[in-house]
Amino acid sequence: MSTIRFCSNCGQTVTRRVPEGDQLPRAVCDHCGTVHYENPRVVVGCVPEWDGRLLLCRRAIEPRRGYWTAPAGFLEIGESMHAAAARETAEEALAEVEVGTLLSVVNVLHAAQVHVMFRARMRTARHGAGVESLETALFHEREIPWDDIAFASIRFALERYLGDRRDRVEHIHFHDIERRAH
Amino acid sequence: MSTIRFCSNCGQTVTRRVPEGDQLPRAVCDHCGTVHYENPRVVVGCVPEWDGRLLLCRRAIEPRRGYWTAPAGFLEIGESMHAAAARETAEEALAEVEVGTLLSVVNVLHAAQVHVMFRARMRTARHGAGVESLETALFHEREIPWDDIAFASIRFALERYLGDRRDRVEHIHFHDIERRAH
Repeated sequence: MSTIRFCSNCGQTVTRRVPEGDQLPRAVCDHCGTVHYENPRVVVGCVPEWDGRLLLCRRAIEPRRGYWTAPAGFLEIGESMHAAAARETAEEALAEVEVGTLLSVVNVLHAAQVHVMFRARMRTARHGAGVESLETALFHEREIPWDDIAFASIRFALERYLGDRRDRVEHIHFHDIERRAH
Repeated sequence: MSTIRFCSNCGQTVTRRVPEGDQLPRAVCDHCGTVHYENPRVVVGCVPEWDGRLLLCRRAIEPRRGYWTAPAGFLEIGESMHAAAARETAEEALAEVEVGTLLSVVNVLHAAQVHVMFRARMRTARHGAGVESLETALFHEREIPWDDIAFASIRFALERYLGDRRDRVEHIHFHDIERRAH
């Protein structure tokens, strides 16, 4: 899975082996000694609600261009999870949200990602397409385009959101996705 | 904060700038076009309990060698959060745990890390020092070495664990740590 071919510290070619005291093969630079660890990245987002409807965005970018998703994106350095969820919603759906309780944590193993989704309340009815979206829309439960949801982790989050809302509870839902399947 | 000086794809020097369509400066390779994103890494661990006592490890490695911590370490690619918590406990404390509910999520902003801790139940009383630990021990609440806990995120998790146990609830606790302070 590693795409590391050269050392980011000294520019020499790396080799792939288990460093002393480690358990897993890593990209190791034998020139300067740097071990290049690769770890899953965190994607954070939310399910924004307004007047009983859920805010979704239709993707303007790959992967899954044209499909619907909830606002979400990579957690940046120096940013809390809550801040990331609010920022992504502002960027992708031009909406201002109050981030609520934790909804779902999905280990997307094939993509080396963890998808963390929160519940959220829109502060106003305002929303629109940011540069990464073709359009945004508010959906009643019966209107959600289930066949056109971009990612399995988002479908999981939406299903659990609605199930909990029906039951008037707010649980956290864990899930593992082993392989790509839209 | 970036330590990237050379492109891991082609070995040429990188420049630091905001790529087109992006909001933040990244290490960009003008030779092959690769954008090197850097994101927070996830540390996963647990608070293992046996017969009312909590299992802690005294660190054999830096940072904070000699100080006490709960078993935790970097989430690896291809591994779920629950699996990582159990693996780290097996490696650092030679103990077998059943990982329980989510306890705490701490954004360690200065370190570009997210520390995720779970509650856990030891399957047997067996524990001992793995290669990264000097010793392990089970502590009653009154015996916990609060002045010698290695990391603020772990102190936070232990405090919340004990508070919830007193109240017979299992909440999730979020916290941000802005700067290094042991």
